[in-house]
Amino acid sequence: MRIRALSEVLPGEPVTNRDLAERFGLHERWLERTTGNRSRYLCSPHSPEGVPRLTGELATAAGRQAMDEAALDPGALDFLILATASPDHLMPSTANLVADRLGLNDLPVFQLMSGCAGALQGLYTARALLASGATRGLVIGADTCRKLMPADEEAVRALGPAAMVNFAMFGDGAGAAVVESQGSGPALTTEHMVLRTLGKGREPAQLVRWYGADGAPEVDGPKGAPVREPMAQEDYKAIEAHVPGLAAELLTELAAAVGWPVPEVEHVLTPQLNGVMTERIREHMGVRPEQAVSCVADTGNNGNALPFIQLNRALGRIVGDPASHGERVLLTAVESSKWVVSGMALRWDGGGER
Amino acid sequence: MRIRALSEVLPGEPVTNRDLAERFGLHERWLERTTGNRSRYLCSPHSPEGVPRLTGELATAAGRQAMDEAALDPGALDFLILATASPDHLMPSTANLVADRLGLNDLPVFQLMSGCAGALQGLYTARALLASGATRGLVIGADTCRKLMPADEEAVRALGPAAMVNFAMFGDGAGAAVVESQGSGPALTTEHMVLRTLGKGREPAQLVRWYGADGAPEVDGPKGAPVREPMAQEDYKAIEAHVPGLAAELLTELAAAVGWPVPEVEHVLTPQLNGVMTERIREHMGVRPEQAVSCVADTGNNGNALPFIQLNRALGRIVGDPASHGERVLLTAVESSKWVVSGMALRWDGGGER
Repeated sequence: MRIRALSEVLPGEPVTNRDLAERFGLHERWLERTTGNRSRYLCSPHSPEGVPRLTGELATAAGRQAMDEAALDPGALDFLILATASPDHLMPSTANLVADRLGLNDLPVFQLMSGCAGALQGLYTARALLASGATRGLVIGADTCRKLMPADEEAVRALGPAAMVNFAMFGDGAGAAVVESQGSGPALTTEHMVLRTLGKGREPAQLVRWYGADGAPEVDGPKGAPVREPMAQEDYKAIEAHVPGLAAELLTELAAAVGWPVPEVEHVLTPQLNGVMTERIREHMGVRPEQAVSCVADTGNNGNALPFIQLNRALGRIVGDPASHGERVLLTAVESSKWVVSGMALRWDGGGER
Repeated sequence: MRIRALSEVLPGEPVTNRDLAERFGLHERWLERTTGNRSRYLCSPHSPEGVPRLTGELATAAGRQAMDEAALDPGALDFLILATASPDHLMPSTANLVADRLGLNDLPVFQLMSGCAGALQGLYTARALLASGATRGLVIGADTCRKLMPADEEAVRALGPAAMVNFAMFGDGAGAAVVESQGSGPALTTEHMVLRTLGKGREPAQLVRWYGADGAPEVDGPKGAPVREPMAQEDYKAIEAHVPGLAAELLTELAAAVGWPVPEVEHVLTPQLNGVMTERIREHMGVRPEQAVSCVADTGNNGNALPFIQLNRALGRIVGDPASHGERVLLTAVESSKWVVSGMALRWDGGGER
């Protein structure tokens, strides 16, 4: 599989820790120290015209950008895959809405539901479709985590510090890749993929609920008064205890499969939880700061978009360096929701330069 | 791709039109005339121990039944795919919870989000995974449509007749298939598959919303008083106008691809919306009553489970007939949510009998 074009879309202006602190009566330093994030991007129903407000709009923008980058008409695509944990509806799939908006018709369209491992599941599925006859497809990852918090800022404030850490960790965004079975232009070529659920006997460390018409039941709030049950819950202790080790093993496995010594790999895309955890994971993986391609501290954790954004930024480093030739990329993503390890080894093929 | 085992799971006892009429103050005859359904199965938080209450529990039961039918240990499976429009959570994927409960670990797990076409998307994805190296996998379809209505029966009653038609149309259930790239035992072998989104420029004819902590906004109810916005909406006029034609074209295309004259095909699995529409579609497709394999009038429309249940019932007809040999199955599913046509042509391979 060749990744021929990549894209990233972040909605509107970055929301800084100072912005959050002012809106919710918190300390800027506390937010930074707790999450390690400097900013995030958030969809809003009040965003100006042209700024994506929903997962489907983010995904459409990312898909269009990748198609433009690859200079492809809709008719050149054989399939569309969207990975998201925050679809616009339960039905129809947001992927089908995105297909319509991108002018894609008369082709298989899939929507995968997962956390950040969904991006890799999308690319893994794409590789299987390409292996079984398809020529070219579009894979998109998109999430709007803002939708998981109450819309009303007063209600967010009432949730207390634990929920605010979540608010400060997450963000909204999308990314996409045009993939093809063969071609002659410049591309990142897939040399190996790993995708494995390891959830047997392990409790989920991330849980995001959805509700029917009645909404969330009330539970006791941190200030005594009843609040709505929070939609998202994390077990940070389990994440801290297991993700660094799983990420290090995954990196070793990927590097061994393609025979690349990790210290020589130019671009290592580390798992993105938040700024603090991502740094801790990088150190545990033995990845040098200049090897690492990380974005979460600026973009926020936007789930299925993250691996595409990291790939896009790795590509930016590669094409921005006139000396680049055959550069190697190792992408690692660990989903702690119910323990999925996923990754890929890619090599830069400059195309016509050969 | 060979389908080696099939299963179906319906939760608890059938809920008849008389049951619904008594609970919600409606006329039994009206329910039957409007939907053509005689019964449906519904998950309930109050179900007795052992009766599935959630999508994940339905899917686990169906997966286990199919694995037992194929006499397979968890270690024999290379992947798991779950298709659903009603996951237990947004994260983790319900597929990952099901994997844990079935003892599946260390393998790729996917969750596809779609309406009834999701079942075919799952089988299509499975075929690609088998073509690109996997040996054997489990594909499950499951939905709990009951979750799309208010939990409180008084609130359901207040929604009025249109919502009650939906209530009477839908149901809960699961089905599964063990698929493999090759084998020697009896199996349904796939000779052709069709999967195409045709939603360009067409409005969705089915919409199912999900909500955050705040739940559904209030809208004007049929009796003047405000009610919660209904989660599910259908455009029956669009469905009536387009589904029969799309189904007939799909059947013609499938039959032509494998060179089977439709009147000679032993088992035709028609699109399942409700009893009334499914009969109308069957007539429009020119399928004789004894060819048709339909279940919706008894099971209710349980979305992603339906095609698996139809396949399971077709298999029952085949293995129940000692004279069966090389029997042909044409499966058609049309999703009107955003217009997906999907289907497959299968032939019975009696295995050792050859």
